Amino acid sequence: MIIDCHGHYTTAPGALQTFRDAQLAVLKDPSLVSQNGLPVISDDQIRESLEKAQLRLQRERGTDLTIFSPRASAMAHHIGDEATSLAWSRVCNDLIGRVCSLYPDNFVGVCQLPQSPAAAPANSAIELERCITELGFVGCNLNPDPSGGHWTSPPLTDRHWYPLYEKMVELDVPAMVHVSSSCNPCFHATGAHYLNADTTAFMQFMTSDLFQDFPTLRFIIPHGGGAVPYHWGRYRGLAQDMKRPPLSELVLHNVFFDTCVYHLPGIELLFKVTPIDNILFGSEMVGAVRGIDPETGQYFDDTKRYIDALPLSEEDRAKVFSGNACKVYPRLGAKLAGRL
Amino acid sequence: MIIDCHGHYTTAPGALQTFRDAQLAVLKDPSLVSQNGLPVISDDQIRESLEKAQLRLQRERGTDLTIFSPRASAMAHHIGDEATSLAWSRVCNDLIGRVCSLYPDNFVGVCQLPQSPAAAPANSAIELERCITELGFVGCNLNPDPSGGHWTSPPLTDRHWYPLYEKMVELDVPAMVHVSSSCNPCFHATGAHYLNADTTAFMQFMTSDLFQDFPTLRFIIPHGGGAVPYHWGRYRGLAQDMKRPPLSELVLHNVFFDTCVYHLPGIELLFKVTPIDNILFGSEMVGAVRGIDPETGQYFDDTKRYIDALPLSEEDRAKVFSGNACKVYPRLGAKLAGRL
Repeated sequence: MIIDCHGHYTTAPGALQTFRDAQLAVLKDPSLVSQNGLPVISDDQIRESLEKAQLRLQRERGTDLTIFSPRASAMAHHIGDEATSLAWSRVCNDLIGRVCSLYPDNFVGVCQLPQSPAAAPANSAIELERCITELGFVGCNLNPDPSGGHWTSPPLTDRHWYPLYEKMVELDVPAMVHVSSSCNPCFHATGAHYLNADTTAFMQFMTSDLFQDFPTLRFIIPHGGGAVPYHWGRYRGLAQDMKRPPLSELVLHNVFFDTCVYHLPGIELLFKVTPIDNILFGSEMVGAVRGIDPETGQYFDDTKRYIDALPLSEEDRAKVFSGNACKVYPRLGAKLAGRL
Repeated sequence: MIIDCHGHYTTAPGALQTFRDAQLAVLKDPSLVSQNGLPVISDDQIRESLEKAQLRLQRERGTDLTIFSPRASAMAHHIGDEATSLAWSRVCNDLIGRVCSLYPDNFVGVCQLPQSPAAAPANSAIELERCITELGFVGCNLNPDPSGGHWTSPPLTDRHWYPLYEKMVELDVPAMVHVSSSCNPCFHATGAHYLNADTTAFMQFMTSDLFQDFPTLRFIIPHGGGAVPYHWGRYRGLAQDMKRPPLSELVLHNVFFDTCVYHLPGIELLFKVTPIDNILFGSEMVGAVRGIDPETGQYFDDTKRYIDALPLSEEDRAKVFSGNACKVYPRLGAKLAGRL
């Protein structure tokens, strides 16, 4: 079985965006509030939105199951306030829940959290619990910068976030560290802000004792770990200069990278420096880069092809394609028991 | 000849820090202002600070000339105001000028700019011109985020920066894009902020027409280009999705990467994806990582060893070690004419 740990519902039916547009209109003109009903989306519309996109690509690329979450760039936790974010998150998560019910063999859910710059992470724990216990989700996406490029929240290692981590540990679910769109003109979302957040989070984890406080807390850093594997020597050296333990002890029981790196040399580097137990197959499809690489004639984001080109043992290949995901997302592992 | 394009005077005599401490004390208590004289540093103190550090390492590692600038993390453009930054920049630049006069075969100067969050880049152009024409420097370090981690300035591609670029073009000098310390607790300086800034700047350049306005403007993005080479497929794909020209046309006449990547797999990747004409040897010594890699028994930042291990032609090796630097820094090329 091949599990793609990183997919977003970027192709949701138009009624979802209509709901969001109405919500944003209300922010500008509160008299509109009563007009913003929940989006009406039929099962057929959901099927159509997936059949021609994610499901087609799963079939074409030979992958089986996608760990599926709401569109990351649309989370936009910086817009409105906590009530805005909660209403939007619930609608988006419920839609992911319907996708997973319609296609239980193809999708398993990960939720968006109702974060907001002024919101307490304890409130995100409530929506997390709802999604895990009521919708059957297996994890969440955690935005380390709900301000959208102004980085006004404390580092992920601050006690500020502990109420959410306590719930994650209680439910035994991991978080993918994933920012959303940027309202800071310095940062292009998918070309800078996403990768910067990945790099930033890793360094925060490296310089803290978070995992002493939460030995079973787990994070997936997407986009191949941002800049980290490319600068693996820098990180090993910084840890050593700071008299910290080696990275293997310091963070690698708790931090995992996906394979959303869109060329073979990058994937080769990722696998060369990172322990195989810390790599989860992911493609971010349909996502940041949608075109075909003229150098290969294949989709940039068909990352399975790059992994297929590596000389891995069958055991290692199975870890990357499914075993590691089942360990990092134990609720997924339990769902799949007997199917793998 | 082997030219290291990226060295900072991280080992300056203590009197420099004493000056800075006094300057910062004045910010807290303006009555102290009259006590802050210029730092008194003898030629012998300068020699001693270099002989046991940068000069020793040049000899041991077999490099010849370092493009040398004030300590990047100490620029701290976010502290005080423009007057603070100007006084500190002039002192730091003058000291680099003395280093270059004492060791003209070993060091050539690059200046710190008197940036400040509220300062106009035109004012940086004045100090740039002084350093180039009076001190014989060959370039500058440009901080894309003088706020120190809050990213309050416009992108580097905004017209805000054009007065500085006009002076750079007039003087025919490049800038290394280099942030300083971070006062945002989210960002560790050398482990996150530096690399994020590199990644951010590249994406800014990629999404603008800056180099149509300034065809001869040149930037060095340090630390191996941040996350960019590792995600080269992502950047090629993003450019294509945005209907922009290929990276080779879009930015690679104007943007160059150094080799401050502290392990062989990272350097291998850099050379695999980046055109050889866009790579300048650099080590950042004495800098971010000072220890010895237990896996190799060599200094992490002895990046020449990694390049020596690559199967490069003599022509390509000469480009990376000296030819490209002389093209990107034409005033250095002119100084070295006949010595190469």
